[in-house]
Amino acid sequence: MHHDQQAVRDVLDALALAVHAGDARAAIATYTDDVIAYDLAPPLVQPSAMVRDRAGLEQWFATWHGPIRIEAGDITVEVEGNLAVAWSLRHMTGVKVGGGAQSLWFRSTAVLRREDREWRIAHIHDSVPFAMDGSGKALLELTPEEQ
Amino acid sequence: MHHDQQAVRDVLDALALAVHAGDARAAIATYTDDVIAYDLAPPLVQPSAMVRDRAGLEQWFATWHGPIRIEAGDITVEVEGNLAVAWSLRHMTGVKVGGGAQSLWFRSTAVLRREDREWRIAHIHDSVPFAMDGSGKALLELTPEEQ
Repeated sequence: MHHDQQAVRDVLDALALAVHAGDARAAIATYTDDVIAYDLAPPLVQPSAMVRDRAGLEQWFATWHGPIRIEAGDITVEVEGNLAVAWSLRHMTGVKVGGGAQSLWFRSTAVLRREDREWRIAHIHDSVPFAMDGSGKALLELTPEEQ
Repeated sequence: MHHDQQAVRDVLDALALAVHAGDARAAIATYTDDVIAYDLAPPLVQPSAMVRDRAGLEQWFATWHGPIRIEAGDITVEVEGNLAVAWSLRHMTGVKVGGGAQSLWFRSTAVLRREDREWRIAHIHDSVPFAMDGSGKALLELTPEEQ
């Protein structure tokens, strides 16, 4: 595999491992200073100060009993120069405090930029689709097998 | 503005104009043959055959009275070589058959590839966030002003 493609995958794996370890500092280290996130959670746009908010991330970790696991499905990575994009389904599992076992498949598209020889996430877009039947329901129980 | 950045914006504008005109052929012409979409609507992943399905797109147009307007907020465009990414909020308005006036702000991230000197959309990810209050509701009424 192309060296840069592997480096991009390594950054995304490092983010998943940091979340799994509950290590907010390591998670934030995968983002550029000016990262912009379109997250599963509101608001529509999460500016850098929100994405890189260590206390906020630690509060979110505290809403889970034990580790959060995030696994990637088949990932597409494209790299040119100092710009990379990667997209795949991701599967998040764990146990929510007061909410029991969770299992969520979502779509994740990441844009990475190489700065000072390090690849970092400049933009990340995570989501699920919503039902078009007028219910306004987010579709939280889809799986790749139902494609 | 950088020439390639403008070319990328032009493709995204062409898609919005094609949707506005109800011109499925012109909309599909903005996509690569292997486009993969993470759409507002299910399934989780829309493969190329679904995104490029002219009859399906025309059926969707027919669920609206008159034109669908899609306007972009402040757009970020990054280009390197034959790879480009663009992200922005988008505002879709129109009148749904049996559903009345619609107004939806959503997040849109597009990956474009230059093939034979033409920029086309290889991946598009459109979404809204969902409520984290256990209701499972897609957040369809957010606006940029509420950021």
